[in-house]
Amino acid sequence: MARRYDSSTTTFSPEGRLHQVEYAIEAINNAGTSVGILARDGVVMASERKITSGLLAPAKTSEKTYKLCPHATCTVAGLTADANILIDQARLRAGRYAYQYQEPIPIENLVEHVCNYKQAYTQYGGLRPFGVAFLFAGYDETHGFQLYQSDPSGNYSGWKATVIGANNQAGKSLLKTEYGVKKETDGDEMKTDDPTGGEEIELPDLAEACRLAVKVLNKTMDGAVASPEKLELFTMSLDEEGNCVHKILNAKESGEIIAQVEAETQSAGDT
Amino acid sequence: MARRYDSSTTTFSPEGRLHQVEYAIEAINNAGTSVGILARDGVVMASERKITSGLLAPAKTSEKTYKLCPHATCTVAGLTADANILIDQARLRAGRYAYQYQEPIPIENLVEHVCNYKQAYTQYGGLRPFGVAFLFAGYDETHGFQLYQSDPSGNYSGWKATVIGANNQAGKSLLKTEYGVKKETDGDEMKTDDPTGGEEIELPDLAEACRLAVKVLNKTMDGAVASPEKLELFTMSLDEEGNCVHKILNAKESGEIIAQVEAETQSAGDT
Amino acid sequence: MARRYDSSTTTFSPEGRLHQVEYAIEAINNAGTSVGILARDGVVMASERKITSGLLAPAKTSEKTYKLCPHATCTVAGLTADANILIDQARLRAGRYAYQYQEPIPIENLVEHVCNYKQAYTQYGGLRPFGVAFLFAGYDETHGFQLYQSDPSGNYSGWKATVIGANNQAGKSLLKTEYGVKKETDGDEMKTDDPTGGEEIELPDLAEACRLAVKVLNKTMDGAVASPEKLELFTMSLDEEGNCVHKILNAKESGEIIAQVEAETQSAGDT
Amino acid sequence: MARRYDSSTTTFSPEGRLHQVEYAIEAINNAGTSVGILARDGVVMASERKITSGLLAPAKTSEKTYKLCPHATCTVAGLTADANILIDQARLRAGRYAYQYQEPIPIENLVEHVCNYKQAYTQYGGLRPFGVAFLFAGYDETHGFQLYQSDPSGNYSGWKATVIGANNQAGKSLLKTEYGVKKETDGDEMKTDDPTGGEEIELPDLAEACRLAVKVLNKTMDGAVASPEKLELFTMSLDEEGNCVHKILNAKESGEIIAQVEAETQSAGDT
Amino acid sequence: MARRYDSSTTTFSPEGRLHQVEYAIEAINNAGTSVGILARDGVVMASERKITSGLLAPAKTSEKTYKLCPHATCTVAGLTADANILIDQARLRAGRYAYQYQEPIPIENLVEHVCNYKQAYTQYGGLRPFGVAFLFAGYDETHGFQLYQSDPSGNYSGWKATVIGANNQAGKSLLKTEYGVKKETDGDEMKTDDPTGGEEIELPDLAEACRLAVKVLNKTMDGAVASPEKLELFTMSLDEEGNCVHKILNAKESGEIIAQVEAETQSAGDT
Amino acid sequence: MARRYDSSTTTFSPEGRLHQVEYAIEAINNAGTSVGILARDGVVMASERKITSGLLAPAKTSEKTYKLCPHATCTVAGLTADANILIDQARLRAGRYAYQYQEPIPIENLVEHVCNYKQAYTQYGGLRPFGVAFLFAGYDETHGFQLYQSDPSGNYSGWKATVIGANNQAGKSLLKTEYGVKKETDGDEMKTDDPTGGEEIELPDLAEACRLAVKVLNKTMDGAVASPEKLELFTMSLDEEGNCVHKILNAKESGEIIAQVEAETQSAGDT
Amino acid sequence: MARRYDSSTTTFSPEGRLHQVEYAIEAINNAGTSVGILARDGVVMASERKITSGLLAPAKTSEKTYKLCPHATCTVAGLTADANILIDQARLRAGRYAYQYQEPIPIENLVEHVCNYKQAYTQYGGLRPFGVAFLFAGYDETHGFQLYQSDPSGNYSGWKATVIGANNQAGKSLLKTEYGVKKETDGDEMKTDDPTGGEEIELPDLAEACRLAVKVLNKTMDGAVASPEKLELFTMSLDEEGNCVHKILNAKESGEIIAQVEAETQSAGDT
Repeated sequence: MARRYDSSTTTFSPEGRLHQVEYAIEAINNAGTSVGILARDGVVMASERKITSGLLAPAKTSEKTYKLCPHATCTVAGLTADANILIDQARLRAGRYAYQYQEPIPIENLVEHVCNYKQAYTQYGGLRPFGVAFLFAGYDETHGFQLYQSDPSGNYSGWKATVIGANNQAGKSLLKTEYGVKKETDGDEMKTDDPTGGEEIELPDLAEACRLAVKVLNKTMDGAVASPEKLELFTMSLDEEGNCVHKILNAKESGEIIAQVEAETQSAGDT
Repeated sequence: MARRYDSSTTTFSPEGRLHQVEYAIEAINNAGTSVGILARDGVVMASERKITSGLLAPAKTSEKTYKLCPHATCTVAGLTADANILIDQARLRAGRYAYQYQEPIPIENLVEHVCNYKQAYTQYGGLRPFGVAFLFAGYDETHGFQLYQSDPSGNYSGWKATVIGANNQAGKSLLKTEYGVKKETDGDEMKTDDPTGGEEIELPDLAEACRLAVKVLNKTMDGAVASPEKLELFTMSLDEEGNCVHKILNAKESGEIIAQVEAETQSAGDT
Repeated sequence: MARRYDSSTTTFSPEGRLHQVEYAIEAINNAGTSVGILARDGVVMASERKITSGLLAPAKTSEKTYKLCPHATCTVAGLTADANILIDQARLRAGRYAYQYQEPIPIENLVEHVCNYKQAYTQYGGLRPFGVAFLFAGYDETHGFQLYQSDPSGNYSGWKATVIGANNQAGKSLLKTEYGVKKETDGDEMKTDDPTGGEEIELPDLAEACRLAVKVLNKTMDGAVASPEKLELFTMSLDEEGNCVHKILNAKESGEIIAQVEAETQSAGDT
Repeated sequence: MARRYDSSTTTFSPEGRLHQVEYAIEAINNAGTSVGILARDGVVMASERKITSGLLAPAKTSEKTYKLCPHATCTVAGLTADANILIDQARLRAGRYAYQYQEPIPIENLVEHVCNYKQAYTQYGGLRPFGVAFLFAGYDETHGFQLYQSDPSGNYSGWKATVIGANNQAGKSLLKTEYGVKKETDGDEMKTDDPTGGEEIELPDLAEACRLAVKVLNKTMDGAVASPEKLELFTMSLDEEGNCVHKILNAKESGEIIAQVEAETQSAGDT
Repeated sequence: MARRYDSSTTTFSPEGRLHQVEYAIEAINNAGTSVGILARDGVVMASERKITSGLLAPAKTSEKTYKLCPHATCTVAGLTADANILIDQARLRAGRYAYQYQEPIPIENLVEHVCNYKQAYTQYGGLRPFGVAFLFAGYDETHGFQLYQSDPSGNYSGWKATVIGANNQAGKSLLKTEYGVKKETDGDEMKTDDPTGGEEIELPDLAEACRLAVKVLNKTMDGAVASPEKLELFTMSLDEEGNCVHKILNAKESGEIIAQVEAETQSAGDT
Repeated sequence: MARRYDSSTTTFSPEGRLHQVEYAIEAINNAGTSVGILARDGVVMASERKITSGLLAPAKTSEKTYKLCPHATCTVAGLTADANILIDQARLRAGRYAYQYQEPIPIENLVEHVCNYKQAYTQYGGLRPFGVAFLFAGYDETHGFQLYQSDPSGNYSGWKATVIGANNQAGKSLLKTEYGVKKETDGDEMKTDDPTGGEEIELPDLAEACRLAVKVLNKTMDGAVASPEKLELFTMSLDEEGNCVHKILNAKESGEIIAQVEAETQSAGDT
Repeated sequence: MARRYDSSTTTFSPEGRLHQVEYAIEAINNAGTSVGILARDGVVMASERKITSGLLAPAKTSEKTYKLCPHATCTVAGLTADANILIDQARLRAGRYAYQYQEPIPIENLVEHVCNYKQAYTQYGGLRPFGVAFLFAGYDETHGFQLYQSDPSGNYSGWKATVIGANNQAGKSLLKTEYGVKKETDGDEMKTDDPTGGEEIELPDLAEACRLAVKVLNKTMDGAVASPEKLELFTMSLDEEGNCVHKILNAKESGEIIAQVEAETQSAGDT
């Protein structure tokens, strides 16, 4: 019966649902997974590369991670053609803001702009929602490092750690268990009694966050162990002068992290 | 048979109903509850936070409560992506009014502007109604503190105390019983013979209103006792210079109120 | 079979009917009743307040009665969100006319403007009719006090006394019996042999009209006796300088009228 | 089967018919009847007032007859809200013509303008035809007094005598019998052997035309004898200075004509 | 099955047909017949007047024949409301051309302009084709007298003699037999062995063409003998100064031609 | 099942077909045949005249062949009303190009412009494809004489010889056999071993091309022998000053060619 | 069931698929195959010519390969009318960029522009996707030679070697086996252990790439051996001054390559 209400974005079902938006979200649940983790000293985003072929040319800049402005980057799950349109919007907005106010755009302002753009495609006839979800990583002076997630409905929220794309549920439940929990294996000083207890958990540093991101992808990719070809690891941090550093790890660097994770898992025995 | 008339906002059913608007209201009845209570010396709005996860970043400003201008704030139930659009409209309107007339916008004027905007989405083809209800709290010199509620149809009305979102019926019936009734437990001077008798009930003060708001949320959240993580308490009052003070209570402050409510309920025996 | 033609305003049924307009009128027949009565020395409009709750804030100005310009006021039955749009139109029109011609807009001109606006929503695709009926009370130098009724089709007509909203048939038949008939109980000088005979009936004065309006509401509200909370009584009259006086009766004033009506009914025995 | 082609003005049926236009004409066949009769010295138009209630306010100017410019008037059958739009168009057109060319608009030009406007609503999607027919009475120097009829299709034609609205067929057949036939009862000099023979019939004078119009309404109103409340009689003639005189007969005047008709019918025995 | 493709002008049927255009043509086949005949010294167009009533006012100029500019006239079969729109277009075009180039518009240019306008209504959605066919009679210096026919599809072609409207097939076959054939009865010098043989047939003069046109109408009107009231005869010719003379024959003139035809038919025995 | 996808140009069928475009092509396959043949010293285009009646006026210029600019001409198969629109576009484009660049438009540029115009009508909603195919003959300095064919989809391609319209398959297969093959009967020096072998076939001269074109029409017209009335022969060639000569052969000239073809066929015995 | 969601680009299926886009891709899978191969010193693109007839005129420039600007060229599979529109867009964009910034447009920028244009046709109502896929070959100073593939969804990606059109799967699997693998037969120095291993495979030179492209076409054309008429071979390379050289091989040149491939295959025995 739901079928009577599911072909148009301008129709609510009797239960108050917007089926077309839900279907667009479904498009994302089949896409390559992306993980985002907020660290003490930066943000980590790791994305699965779904199509890997020796015939593919190496991406000129990156494949899943798009720099929006000097202090914001996003990663994408879903229809990449749709994503390109929104990324153009975001870059334009960031550039215009910087030009108009002579200061970098606040991250949430940038995210909200993209999401308001998405929302319009869920309320007007003759359109379909954008079939794409984003993770936004950014830094501004007021709120420091930030991580946002948005979906086709135009909703967004700030996260310390989250997953979008295929198997995101599995990834999220791993994050709940592992994020902010002191790991005995590396003698870290993080301590928290209540991992879900709001403010008081201590954030991991970038290195830990990278390892955790790899672990999550290991899990979402049906247990297959990640290889440098199959994932893209991005870190955002600050240099000594306080500038934002965007870095996509090369194959060697990400290979080392994968090896560490494997070693860790080995030593931890069966999880 | 109603189905023939329920897929478009531009179609009346033979009984003169607009089903799409009713379905949009349904979307709100599943959303997190919000309570608004007018006090002698301010307005209280309390909202349930539906999604609570240790992985969620603490909202930069607030989650459910949006400041519109120096003397008006709203809280939201329903699709937050839709709400963002309307909040932008409201801010724009308030700013333009202040600029044009060099005085703050009257609250009802602001509310009506948002509601007229909503109405258009119920009368033109190729659109769907906004799936969002609002509580507006505001202050102006003519009418003092005010509380308004609006729904997707574009209707609005002023209330002394009201509830929107999930279980709002249960919340409203609690309000009817408790609002404006002298409570013996705290020795207050409020007295009224007829709680539903129009003008003559005495308004509670902010502290009482906060406690009553928490009680209502306790009830609408299926009896679960509220915790500071699960609700957002907002108060609007005036400082000595007559400026409007917007305050979102922090975890400690709201924790104390919750504790008071619990104590009160305890001592009152079974309700 | 009518169903094939009833989902769009741009479709005539084979019998030449516009079903969508009829459905919109249906929306009004479920709304709170409003009575309008032309008096010798003014106009009376009385409206039922459907929702009465002690938690509702008293309306800042009024609830069902809207001043359009210094010499015109309307009352509303139906979707209030729709009504707000039309009221804005009416105010704009009245203001522009006054500014352009430096004299008050003739009442019928104002009414026709609103009705032409309504008509457009019954003839163009992608729209639905306004689900609202109006009573307009006004005064101009040419025609004195006037009372108009309009419905969603954009039709309007001048009346001496009429009813819109729920049970309007019952109300109208009461009006036919009582309007312009000399009442023995108060020794009035009104006399007429033929109450439906066009020009020659004598108009009641404002006080009589108020009492009659309350009687009609008593009847349309399923026999329940009106209380000051449940109705809004509006009178328009002229002061000594010939200015139009708009007055919404307060609880005490309307209470007295209700009491008079009750006494009258009592003494008249069973009606 | 016709049903497949009857819901849109932009669809011809296989027989080349426009059903929506035919349905709009149906709307008129249920409306109050109007008769137009061209006289030697003017034009008469008589209209049935369908709704007669003692509570209706007397129309400020007239109810069914609308002056368009100093030398043209129309009467209406069908949806009056639709008619108002077209009357505004006609007035605007007449005024603009007079302003631009400094001479009165020729009647047929005015009629054609209104009809072209109507035609557009029968050929473009997302619209419905105007559900209204007109009789236009006018005078210009070239063609003298004229009478036109138009229908929702945008067709129009000049008539010496015609009927629109309910029972127009019955009315027309009476006109065929009586129009231009010498009446012995009043010793008139009119003579014609062939009442349908084109140019050569002698036109009645205004008084005869009025009586004939009343007779026709008597017939179309199911034999009920017309009363001054139930009809509106309009005459257009020239005064001594050659100016067009528009006159709506008052109750007394039309009452006299009705009485004459009755007397005539009486003396003529059974018709 | 054709029904799936016949409700919109923007849909080809699988056989490559445009059913809506065909249905519009059907509208014309029920309309009053018009005949056009090219003569040596002019053009003749004769049209049936379908509605004849003694109550119809004589048309001010003409009923079926419309002058477009000093050297072009058209006659119409089909929906006259539609025709009026196109005639306005044609007049506008002719006037603009004359103004811009200071010379009369070539006839084919004028015809093509109207036909291109028609074509658009067969290719764009939300429109219906014009339900009207035209005969255009015109004269220009390059090509002399010309006769064109156009239909709702926007097709047009030049003819020496043709028929549109009801029974046009019967009319055309009569034309094939009689047009360009020497008639012994009136001692004319026209001679031709092959009436369908292209260039070499000798054109009739205006008088012969008029008689032939009447004969054709006699046939298409189901054998009923034409009367001056039932047809409109138009001739275009040149006066001594080479100006185009448009003439609609009055009742006497056309009566004489009808009489001649009758006499001719009588003497010829049974056809 | 294909029927679900065949009513709109904006819908692909599951096999990736655009049915509406295919149906439009079908409209052309029922239209009069046109042949185009590239010759050594020009281009020949021959078209069947489908409607031949002695009552048709001889076309003022030509019937099936339209000059676009001094060096390009086209012939048409399909809906001529549609064709007129495109021919206007082509002429406008050619004129503008010549004006802007002060040199004649290259032929392929002109063809592509028309085809891009056609393409739009296959991709946007609320439109239907143009139901018309073209042969374009042209000459420019870069590429000499050229022949192009386009269809409703907006595709075009250059041909040495091709056929559009009814029975085009039969015509094309005759062309394959005969085009570029030395004919013994007229002692021509053309020689080629592989008539389908790409570059190396020698082009016929204009006279041969004319004869071949007539042969093809003979075949496509169901074996009926062509007559001067039934076809239109067009040749484009250069005069001594290098100007493009457009020539439509008159009845005598084309009659001679038809006779030659007949003689040839006779002498060749049965084909 | 998928059928409910497959007729419009603005509808997601419940699985989050856009069926219309998939159907458009289907249109390409039936089109002539095109191969693109990135070489050490240039790019090779080879396309199948589906329609080969001796009557087709040789294309003026090329048939399947379109130069976009001095340093970019594309080849096309699918609806060529659609492709023309996009090629115009690409040329316009490249020209404007060069004019505005006075430097050649980066290849990926050009490709993304075309793809964003395509994307819009998958998200807005009343449109259909472009039924065309592209291979883009280009050179810029930053990234050297590049090869991109795009499809109707607006997706694109960079490839070292890829195939579009009919049998592209078979072609791709051949590429996987042969691309970057040292061929013993010609003593080349290319060596790689892992042909799918990302960065480290050595690119072939232009000559090898040409031979490989022919091999792929041999395979996709159902084993039929390619002939110069049936394919179009394009190479892009740099001359000594660093300018981009676009070359479409003539029949002789491509014939030689085909012969080499045949010889190679022969000597290699059965593949």
